[in-house]
Amino acid sequence: MDQERRVALKFAYDGSKFFGFQRQPDKVTVEGMLVKALEKIGGIASSRECGYRSSSRTDRGVSALGNIVSVRTSFRVEDLCSALNSELEGIWVYSAVQVPEEFNPRAARIRWYRYYLARSGQKPSVLKDIAARFVGIHDFSSHSRKDNRNPMRKIDSIDVSERGLFYAIDFRAESFLWNMVRRIVWMMNEGSSGRLSLDSIGPDAAKMPPRIGLSPPEYLVLMDIDCGIEFPIDRRAFVGIIRNIERRVRQDAMRLEFTEEMSRLISR
Amino acid sequence: MDQERRVALKFAYDGSKFFGFQRQPDKVTVEGMLVKALEKIGGIASSRECGYRSSSRTDRGVSALGNIVSVRTSFRVEDLCSALNSELEGIWVYSAVQVPEEFNPRAARIRWYRYYLARSGQKPSVLKDIAARFVGIHDFSSHSRKDNRNPMRKIDSIDVSERGLFYAIDFRAESFLWNMVRRIVWMMNEGSSGRLSLDSIGPDAAKMPPRIGLSPPEYLVLMDIDCGIEFPIDRRAFVGIIRNIERRVRQDAMRLEFTEEMSRLISR
Repeated sequence: MDQERRVALKFAYDGSKFFGFQRQPDKVTVEGMLVKALEKIGGIASSRECGYRSSSRTDRGVSALGNIVSVRTSFRVEDLCSALNSELEGIWVYSAVQVPEEFNPRAARIRWYRYYLARSGQKPSVLKDIAARFVGIHDFSSHSRKDNRNPMRKIDSIDVSERGLFYAIDFRAESFLWNMVRRIVWMMNEGSSGRLSLDSIGPDAAKMPPRIGLSPPEYLVLMDIDCGIEFPIDRRAFVGIIRNIERRVRQDAMRLEFTEEMSRLISR
Repeated sequence: MDQERRVALKFAYDGSKFFGFQRQPDKVTVEGMLVKALEKIGGIASSRECGYRSSSRTDRGVSALGNIVSVRTSFRVEDLCSALNSELEGIWVYSAVQVPEEFNPRAARIRWYRYYLARSGQKPSVLKDIAARFVGIHDFSSHSRKDNRNPMRKIDSIDVSERGLFYAIDFRAESFLWNMVRRIVWMMNEGSSGRLSLDSIGPDAAKMPPRIGLSPPEYLVLMDIDCGIEFPIDRRAFVGIIRNIERRVRQDAMRLEFTEEMSRLISR
C-alpha cells in the first residue's frame, strides 16, 4: 500500500447493461458498480470517506468511452485498473493517474458526445443547417429537462458525418444540460425529415413546436472528456480489455448472423 | 371465436433474453412467456387444460429459428401470430396452422441444429474428419448429460462450412440427447486445434478423454424442425417481425460501432 492520494480513473461502459449512471439503492448502476468494485479490492473503505467526485452523470441507456471519476486511495496506481476490471462487467477502466487533491472531473474543458442517428432519408444539408443554429451561446431551457442550473450554455461545435447505417453527430461543449443532446437530435431528425417546419427549429426560434421530443438514449455515447490532464492507457488493463473486445466482436457477429437468418427465413 | 381445435405454432427466439426454454417459477423462460401470452390474449384458459405439447426444450442461452409447440384453442388462426407477438419480446411467432388432434411436435422427423464455432486456427479438414466419426447410429452416453432416455441416437449428417468469423456446423437428426451437440462441438474444436489426440475422439473411441467439455450455448441455434407439415409465414406477423428485424439490425450496428471505437481508443 502506498500513501493515500487522489487518483482519477477513466473508463468506458455499455449503457445497455445498467440502470443509468448514478447510484440508486437496489439498482445496478455504473457508479454503483464502480464504487462497489473499489470497496471490494480495498481501494477505498467507503464511498463517503474517499472524496468521490464524478464528471458526467449520463442518462439511463447512454454509453461512454471516456467518463472520469476521482477518489482518494492508497492502492498502487499501476495495479488499480486491472484489479477493478476483474470485478466489473460492462465497464472497462483503462487509465488511472495520480492528480492533485483539488482535481475535480466535474470542471471539464470540453465534453464530447456522439449521437448515432439511423439514416432514413434525412437531408444531410438540412441536418447541418439545423446543427449550426444550436452552436454558440444560447438559452437551452426549452431544449433540456428542467433542473436548477443556469440554462445558458455554449456549444462549441456540432459536426455531422456519415458512418455506416448512421449519421454520427458530434457535440462539443464545456457542459450540457439534462437531455439537451437528445432533444437537439430529435429536432434535427424531425426538421431534416420534413416533419417539422424549419421556422420552429433553433434555440431562439420565434415559435417553438408544442412538444420537443427525445431521441432514444441507446444511440448516444459520451466519447471523451477533456479535464486538462493526460490519461495514458494502462498496459495491464489493455490485455484484458482487448480480450473482452474480441469476445464482444464474436457476440456481435453471432447476433448479426441470427438476425440475418431470421430475415431470410421470414422473407422466403 | 371459432370452435376449439388443435393449432401448431412455429417461432423463433433470442436465447440470450431468457432463462432457458422450460417453464420455471419466477424465471423468464421461452415456454413461460409463450404460455402467458396465450393466456393473456384469451387463446387458452390455462396451460393445464389446453393440451400443451412442445417439440424441443433448448438449453439456457440457446436460440431458435424454428421451434414448435401445439395447443388446443378457439382463437382465430389468422389472428393468432400477431396477437401473440404483440405480447412478446425476444420471441417471434411466425406461423400458426391447424393440425389433427393427435399431432405431437415431439415426434419430429428431423431436427436441425447449427453451431457457430468461432474460427481460430482449427483445421477444416480435421473438423470434417471428426464430424464424420459421429455420423450414424452410436451410443452417445459419454457425449451427453445423463437422463433416463435411450442413449442410442442416429445422426443423419454433420456439415461444416465457413461463414464469416465462424464455422457453421449443421447437425441433422431425428432427436438429440441433452447437451449432445455442444459436447460433440467441444470435441471437434479440441481435436481440430491439436489440443486432443484424434485417437481419443469419436463416440466409439477406445480411450475417451478424462473429461468431455461443453461448448458455450449462445452460439447454438435450433434452425428448424421437420414435423411433416407445412408452416406458411403468417402475413400479418410478417410486417411486425420485419420491423423488429430492422430495429435489431440498427442495434447490432450500434453495438459494433461502440466496440470498434473502444478498440480504436484502447489501441491508440
